[in-house]
Amino acid sequence: MSHVSFLSDFGLTDEFVGVVHGVIAKLAPDTTVVDVTHGIPRGDVRSGALALVRAIQYLPEGVVLAVVDPGVGTNRRAIAAQTESRMLFVGPDNGLLGPAVATMGGATKIVELTNPAAQIPSVGATFAGRDIFGPAAALLASGEASVDDLGPEVAPDSVTPLLIPLPEIEPGRVVGEAWWVDTFGNVQSNIGPEDLAVAGITRAVTVTVRVGATEHEVPWVDAYGDVDEGEPLLYVDSSGLMAVAVRAGSATSYFNLAAGTALTLVG
Amino acid sequence: MSHVSFLSDFGLTDEFVGVVHGVIAKLAPDTTVVDVTHGIPRGDVRSGALALVRAIQYLPEGVVLAVVDPGVGTNRRAIAAQTESRMLFVGPDNGLLGPAVATMGGATKIVELTNPAAQIPSVGATFAGRDIFGPAAALLASGEASVDDLGPEVAPDSVTPLLIPLPEIEPGRVVGEAWWVDTFGNVQSNIGPEDLAVAGITRAVTVTVRVGATEHEVPWVDAYGDVDEGEPLLYVDSSGLMAVAVRAGSATSYFNLAAGTALTLVG
Amino acid sequence: MSHVSFLSDFGLTDEFVGVVHGVIAKLAPDTTVVDVTHGIPRGDVRSGALALVRAIQYLPEGVVLAVVDPGVGTNRRAIAAQTESRMLFVGPDNGLLGPAVATMGGATKIVELTNPAAQIPSVGATFAGRDIFGPAAALLASGEASVDDLGPEVAPDSVTPLLIPLPEIEPGRVVGEAWWVDTFGNVQSNIGPEDLAVAGITRAVTVTVRVGATEHEVPWVDAYGDVDEGEPLLYVDSSGLMAVAVRAGSATSYFNLAAGTALTLVG
Repeated sequence: MSHVSFLSDFGLTDEFVGVVHGVIAKLAPDTTVVDVTHGIPRGDVRSGALALVRAIQYLPEGVVLAVVDPGVGTNRRAIAAQTESRMLFVGPDNGLLGPAVATMGGATKIVELTNPAAQIPSVGATFAGRDIFGPAAALLASGEASVDDLGPEVAPDSVTPLLIPLPEIEPGRVVGEAWWVDTFGNVQSNIGPEDLAVAGITRAVTVTVRVGATEHEVPWVDAYGDVDEGEPLLYVDSSGLMAVAVRAGSATSYFNLAAGTALTLVG
Repeated sequence: MSHVSFLSDFGLTDEFVGVVHGVIAKLAPDTTVVDVTHGIPRGDVRSGALALVRAIQYLPEGVVLAVVDPGVGTNRRAIAAQTESRMLFVGPDNGLLGPAVATMGGATKIVELTNPAAQIPSVGATFAGRDIFGPAAALLASGEASVDDLGPEVAPDSVTPLLIPLPEIEPGRVVGEAWWVDTFGNVQSNIGPEDLAVAGITRAVTVTVRVGATEHEVPWVDAYGDVDEGEPLLYVDSSGLMAVAVRAGSATSYFNLAAGTALTLVG
Repeated sequence: MSHVSFLSDFGLTDEFVGVVHGVIAKLAPDTTVVDVTHGIPRGDVRSGALALVRAIQYLPEGVVLAVVDPGVGTNRRAIAAQTESRMLFVGPDNGLLGPAVATMGGATKIVELTNPAAQIPSVGATFAGRDIFGPAAALLASGEASVDDLGPEVAPDSVTPLLIPLPEIEPGRVVGEAWWVDTFGNVQSNIGPEDLAVAGITRAVTVTVRVGATEHEVPWVDAYGDVDEGEPLLYVDSSGLMAVAVRAGSATSYFNLAAGTALTLVG
């Protein structure tokens, strides 16, 4: 029993995800596909990479197939990465895989997916998920191919890194940004509790959350239950990052935050 | 081959559902997950309970994992219920599971999910679906745990009931409400044909559907094909409840109905 | 290991898709379901048929279950079709299955799904996906039934055809229409490169795309990478049909196109 964990920005309106499932079912009928999500915003490589790194430790051993690929139809490379763990990664060479690969101990080998025998020919433009990435994931999951069978090795330092903003730590404050707004309106920042510690901000009754020119005194608590309904909270979220939420409400409207908005925590 | 049937209000935009699938795949690799739906309106326990009770008799033997949990992060309990049937239930103690458990013959044992050995530790706030409910469902489905291994038994009468409105039956009329508006715009009421019988309303050519101050004479028929396109119909729907629809149209706009709107059927 | 590939217009908000999965899991527990898509616009048989024909060659051997069924609750027939390939088809007799069946070599036998022993009785109106189509697909996939067990054979020429518009080919131009707008805003036409060849239009630097009274000179290229961001392109898409797109943009707004809009290619 092998697994392919599949993340994309394909959405579920068209048959794109279903066709990739079909390709995997044909080439690797004993493989189970776990759909991580297909709701990544179109072409948003960073969002895809962050979702993957949040999920990766909870995914089963096997292959991770990730396709957020604004460069499809250009000369960006398609790659597969082997790691020290028992996880293999397949996707475009645009930074999407980087953080998750690093979380799994880093790549021991990276290949470019160029072997036509491991691809499905298309009558027209390439649908890379169907024709290149899906078949590669299926062949790896079934054990019919190793990464060496998919194409030539590429130099690790030639692979596109993901540029993700790190928080700026100053005495008494950390300048970060909103990294992820989830479907419930909770907002995860790129600031960890260890960043606050470096800044000398220890867990206190309240912390100042500054968004633009507005400051909010927000209680730093463990969970929703520690504040009343409609009240804001600052907490270490289930990914281990500082997040703001509003109990039974939405932090996006309360704090006027969206993904990418600058956000400063002041002790 | 065991099954976990999974219902939630997580939506499919984020990776929440995928991560729970990942947890189950890791802990119980031979288990198949049936996604009942993840489109329950956020925090709407009643909608989730009603969807589950509509689906339950069509779900495979195994574990039902249901997470609509507005009380996450408070001291609401997490529970698992064993039933006389071969179905086990896992979810929050907020009424979500009640109607489906009752449909399956009632609980023979209910436990609180407190055993840390059956949970996944989190670096920050608990993501209960990933850390508590998902692992419990996986361990039950794989047979690696019984409900007794998950935590201590709780008194059945301490479990939160679901308060659902029953129709009021008077001679010649039944006062109910719209219970569910489906994606096609069909509206299911909380009134059964047996309630109409008690009110002395037998199947007739037309029945009066009263919404607010407006009355509609609606034919009581078997199915869409019995009326013309654009025309309304009253029928016993596929769950056995009285429903209104508009052939090739939407009953919500025709009747000005939403979930929760009062609706009276007059013979 | 057998497969059911499942396409519908049920959407993912309600539990309809999940209930059909449940029915299949109960009747055919060893069957894997591939969800092709459930995002077909409500009742849009042509869109469903086109999505199915685009997907069909990538789906695993087994049963195709397709339910886009605006005639549910009328006397339209429910059918199953056996083909020369190892694919079986189940769905309503409304043209939905036709193009995909033809792609698989045509039907060798078509039956009407009338055998009550192969159906699930309903307390009220029939939910055909749950009560008729799903059980038929499950019984075929598990091998517990052949098409002959599902109901009597029907005459192939009595089956409803799908009326799909063919392009009109004139010297120097082909009059077609927009057939499919995908979630990325790419627009597939019903015109193939072979139609352009018949019209005497060979691949040139640019082709004129006429929509209404507006003409656009559009480069005919292989893929997105051949034009700059924000620029339009004409290409043979991954289904082998002429399509227009805008690199990192949307062809629907650029060309003012929607599904069904007339579109003429002029050499």
